[in-house]
Amino acid sequence: MAVVVQNILRADQAIINGLAIAGAATVHEALGRKGLMQAHIRPIFPGARIAGSAITISAPPGDNWMIHVAIEQIRAGDILVLAPTSPCDAGYFGDLLATSAKARGCRGLISDGGVRDIRDLTEMDFPVWSRAISAQGTVKETLGSVNIPVVCAGALVNAGDIIVADDDGVCVVPRQEAEATLAAAEKRTELEEMKRKRLAAGELGLDIYNMRPRLAEKGLKYV
Amino acid sequence: MAVVVQNILRADQAIINGLAIAGAATVHEALGRKGLMQAHIRPIFPGARIAGSAITISAPPGDNWMIHVAIEQIRAGDILVLAPTSPCDAGYFGDLLATSAKARGCRGLISDGGVRDIRDLTEMDFPVWSRAISAQGTVKETLGSVNIPVVCAGALVNAGDIIVADDDGVCVVPRQEAEATLAAAEKRTELEEMKRKRLAAGELGLDIYNMRPRLAEKGLKYV
Amino acid sequence: MAVVVQNILRADQAIINGLAIAGAATVHEALGRKGLMQAHIRPIFPGARIAGSAITISAPPGDNWMIHVAIEQIRAGDILVLAPTSPCDAGYFGDLLATSAKARGCRGLISDGGVRDIRDLTEMDFPVWSRAISAQGTVKETLGSVNIPVVCAGALVNAGDIIVADDDGVCVVPRQEAEATLAAAEKRTELEEMKRKRLAAGELGLDIYNMRPRLAEKGLKYV
Amino acid sequence: MAVVVQNILRADQAIINGLAIAGAATVHEALGRKGLMQAHIRPIFPGARIAGSAITISAPPGDNWMIHVAIEQIRAGDILVLAPTSPCDAGYFGDLLATSAKARGCRGLISDGGVRDIRDLTEMDFPVWSRAISAQGTVKETLGSVNIPVVCAGALVNAGDIIVADDDGVCVVPRQEAEATLAAAEKRTELEEMKRKRLAAGELGLDIYNMRPRLAEKGLKYV
Amino acid sequence: MAVVVQNILRADQAIINGLAIAGAATVHEALGRKGLMQAHIRPIFPGARIAGSAITISAPPGDNWMIHVAIEQIRAGDILVLAPTSPCDAGYFGDLLATSAKARGCRGLISDGGVRDIRDLTEMDFPVWSRAISAQGTVKETLGSVNIPVVCAGALVNAGDIIVADDDGVCVVPRQEAEATLAAAEKRTELEEMKRKRLAAGELGLDIYNMRPRLAEKGLKYV
Amino acid sequence: MAVVVQNILRADQAIINGLAIAGAATVHEALGRKGLMQAHIRPIFPGARIAGSAITISAPPGDNWMIHVAIEQIRAGDILVLAPTSPCDAGYFGDLLATSAKARGCRGLISDGGVRDIRDLTEMDFPVWSRAISAQGTVKETLGSVNIPVVCAGALVNAGDIIVADDDGVCVVPRQEAEATLAAAEKRTELEEMKRKRLAAGELGLDIYNMRPRLAEKGLKYV
Repeated sequence: MAVVVQNILRADQAIINGLAIAGAATVHEALGRKGLMQAHIRPIFPGARIAGSAITISAPPGDNWMIHVAIEQIRAGDILVLAPTSPCDAGYFGDLLATSAKARGCRGLISDGGVRDIRDLTEMDFPVWSRAISAQGTVKETLGSVNIPVVCAGALVNAGDIIVADDDGVCVVPRQEAEATLAAAEKRTELEEMKRKRLAAGELGLDIYNMRPRLAEKGLKYV
Repeated sequence: MAVVVQNILRADQAIINGLAIAGAATVHEALGRKGLMQAHIRPIFPGARIAGSAITISAPPGDNWMIHVAIEQIRAGDILVLAPTSPCDAGYFGDLLATSAKARGCRGLISDGGVRDIRDLTEMDFPVWSRAISAQGTVKETLGSVNIPVVCAGALVNAGDIIVADDDGVCVVPRQEAEATLAAAEKRTELEEMKRKRLAAGELGLDIYNMRPRLAEKGLKYV
Repeated sequence: MAVVVQNILRADQAIINGLAIAGAATVHEALGRKGLMQAHIRPIFPGARIAGSAITISAPPGDNWMIHVAIEQIRAGDILVLAPTSPCDAGYFGDLLATSAKARGCRGLISDGGVRDIRDLTEMDFPVWSRAISAQGTVKETLGSVNIPVVCAGALVNAGDIIVADDDGVCVVPRQEAEATLAAAEKRTELEEMKRKRLAAGELGLDIYNMRPRLAEKGLKYV
Repeated sequence: MAVVVQNILRADQAIINGLAIAGAATVHEALGRKGLMQAHIRPIFPGARIAGSAITISAPPGDNWMIHVAIEQIRAGDILVLAPTSPCDAGYFGDLLATSAKARGCRGLISDGGVRDIRDLTEMDFPVWSRAISAQGTVKETLGSVNIPVVCAGALVNAGDIIVADDDGVCVVPRQEAEATLAAAEKRTELEEMKRKRLAAGELGLDIYNMRPRLAEKGLKYV
Repeated sequence: MAVVVQNILRADQAIINGLAIAGAATVHEALGRKGLMQAHIRPIFPGARIAGSAITISAPPGDNWMIHVAIEQIRAGDILVLAPTSPCDAGYFGDLLATSAKARGCRGLISDGGVRDIRDLTEMDFPVWSRAISAQGTVKETLGSVNIPVVCAGALVNAGDIIVADDDGVCVVPRQEAEATLAAAEKRTELEEMKRKRLAAGELGLDIYNMRPRLAEKGLKYV
Repeated sequence: MAVVVQNILRADQAIINGLAIAGAATVHEALGRKGLMQAHIRPIFPGARIAGSAITISAPPGDNWMIHVAIEQIRAGDILVLAPTSPCDAGYFGDLLATSAKARGCRGLISDGGVRDIRDLTEMDFPVWSRAISAQGTVKETLGSVNIPVVCAGALVNAGDIIVADDDGVCVVPRQEAEATLAAAEKRTELEEMKRKRLAAGELGLDIYNMRPRLAEKGLKYV
């Protein structure tokens, strides 16, 4: 039952980097409004904006042994995704693991558990999105798995899926949909730029999107 | 049932600005310890300190159509107050809506739902206090109402009430009580300044407020 | 039942300061993974890192009278620890109390209730770790106790225990274990420094800690 | 600031009783989908179904003094509605207060705080809907108010409004809308009875409500 | 994007019924400790114990239109599984929908949203496991999908997977693993029966499972 | 660090049984309003009312090994008290462990984690108060301790303290205070009986407790 899947497929790095620029909200829209992790996953410091291929970790509550195993599987540009098998906010990950992960090219961690050594991680500029911050220690006693499909914060993540994370949250793009999603995201960003200018000039969304007839038809009354 | 109330009364702008300077905690005290929103409403970035007249929005879960309608009702100095009709943390509001609201003079948003585009809103210096940060998209399918009385984060808000928001939270001042509240708040601020000096000099609250006799009478024992 | 214990024992100041440098996560490990407060206790601003002797406060919900009583008991280097007798997030503590506490040498506050005047506290550089931020006012009507044993955020605190607080959370070190804990923490910090260098150089935890044989024995499969 | 409003208006008892029969969900619909308390308010035992005129209580956290004051204001058929001024789950109400309230004709309690003596209340068949069950004691030290407007579990309640409570939750009907709401609720119940028969016979909602054309128009695909 | 997948594969009915008898906890163990929904999903009445093939529903927050669409897809023995696209506790489902679903042979509903008409559903003996009970109404405005993969309360559910639900919670068995899981569950049940007899006779687990040597080896001290 | 304390002191059985009759709310009052566990600890079925000597268990998240160790320490009349070292709602305890504990005279379990096999436990009439119900399995890999002081749901529990649990919650009575607490509880019960009769006859608490002068003095206004 405890396995490490070693040779996973990854999306093209240029596509991944494009998704990072688009950001979680735009990518989520471009993907058809799916793949978003729940809002309890928050960054430990503001301003980070990354994308990378998911190395998934299924770990027992309060046991971070599998993170060591997962780090060996990292290639430059990957992101660790940790899903405890039952809800747990213990501090699975700290500055030593971050040092190791960073040395192998890891861009960050998404944890549906806890994280610690916040000050060090901030100084290292190693971004983490997590359910909790907790100094609580973990053990290394029970196996889990690496690179199997996991549900992390309500989102299904397959190894090699693209994780897009910023201040708005974390979105998961299935590897096979990465290219199309980037294309849609870039088109969306372009359109939004035009809308932004009109809105900034004082035009109303009611007019730009021609909402007034449909509002009236639905029965909205002005009093 | 779906209405937009167009001509609402607002308090005097000088009074509103005075309340902003006093801040949420002092205003809440000056108002007789009422009107406070629940503590789950937090600012998306620290340091903002605003007051303004409430434009209220009652919106279905996951549907931000009425925000477009509400923006047309904004006058310079207003604050949007969004109350979903059932608990929802979807991302009702982002940088495009903020651009539009700001173009009309809006000072900020209070949302008992979610908000997104945090980085853009921070760069725009458009303050938001919300229940959640979420990239989750919303739809434009179902009507709600604008400028009807709403309960937002446990506080009753009538259109035109004064919203006072800072790092401590959000307080709602009924429009009719604005002037008296400002007077009480200013008196309170003045008194606090005197107390602060005495406390900073090392005097004890036990002595300044003459608490010792009443503590003894209630039965406090020193051992 | 309402008592103030006046002459409490404190640990040596040099030991306390050493624990502050070690930080909450390392101290928690050095102490044998106990004494940690729950993760809902968070700092009101990032970066603070303090240790001090606990002045404990058992207070009724929404009543901050005993904080005034507690402040008189503060000696330079102490930390206030507030435990409401039933869950409450009202704003027990603000800038006036902080001014008074600071004048007596207090290093900070741990509150399993709420706190307010965040902006002022931040400007004063007076650190607080709390369950909530709330402008909600409190009363001064019901007695509590000072310097009795309390449970704060899930951790037992006796007056004079050492509180270690930073961005990772809050750890409580029993006074009698302070010296041994510091020794263990310093050894641990030293060891971590060596590990950090090896990990930064690209060595794997799997190898440094010789995990591979035990992983294989437990049945981990690579596929 | 602490007041007891003594002569409140109540709706007609026959209308109130009719609303009890309709139940919270139907009344909420008949009222235009407003007035519902939040879902954290749950009954202490299943099966109760009541309606009555609200006697509102605004009480400090952990202080049940005002409940004694409110009980004097009860007339036969009334329901107590308790709103703490800040979140609190202490046991404000138990079998002694229930005995007193029942002796005056009270039909039940809605509490956005805690309640205790669950076994006794169940044996007395005195229904309570509350945020929490807690044996935590309260004090009688600080004034609050009776029969002022309160926000209880997210719903505005004016004294004399009709409270409708059952296993689905608690709905508040403004006194002035009681008669119209009952009429709408009874019509709704009648219509539902017809629909129930058709659905029980195997007809689909898709056909009864003629949903297929609109689904197709919106773009639903069958694959 | 909005699709209804019509011809889904189902497991053998005898296997499904066997899984119902085994119950959620045993099935979860037999499956290798995966597939469990989160503990916030609770039954609306105690004692129900069902299994069935999943008809999955992805629905917007506060919009129950797709449930009508899903009911047409039900075959005798199926269970509805509702996953809102963002967290929502509105009352998506009540006695009319239950009447319709039951007429088509539906065994129950799993809802990561809310449910209402609790008294009627209990009298109908129609079991529901849900995140919340709420009388809050929903709309029929926005499309979703039926029988696509969904994440419900943290568990991945594909249409046709077997849902096993009882007082312990809800477990999802992938259709392809149903037969092997049942075999493992039945073996486990048998083994447990033997253990139960020995434990009831006063033997200790420490001895039955021969735990003492390993406890000693790990360093457990008896004092 | 992992220890089992074997010879603990227990209170007199007659006192323990008297405390069970008094119930958690009365005992909590008699004890001076301390010792109460937090309200998230709820019984798995209504109506149980027990007291017993605490066998405490400190266990890692998701690891129930120490429960087996603890069961050997049970004497007739004891109650197990399980405190995970970090928040965890996994199903630590089920019908096999209950069978074993019951065979040794155990009266019930208090768990600040999860529990499973609810139907079996209910049929066995083995009462459990817990944070969560969850079918999630646990492991047996990491040591904890038995009969050391623990904090369970916010209350300090020493081995041999008396646990009093009923539908109102769970109260912990320090062993040394058991006799005095029982005496105070019985006096309180007697007094309440008299008050109950007067209240049932329609007398008001306002008059029985002579509250009117103090209310007037504090400034309560009747309008």
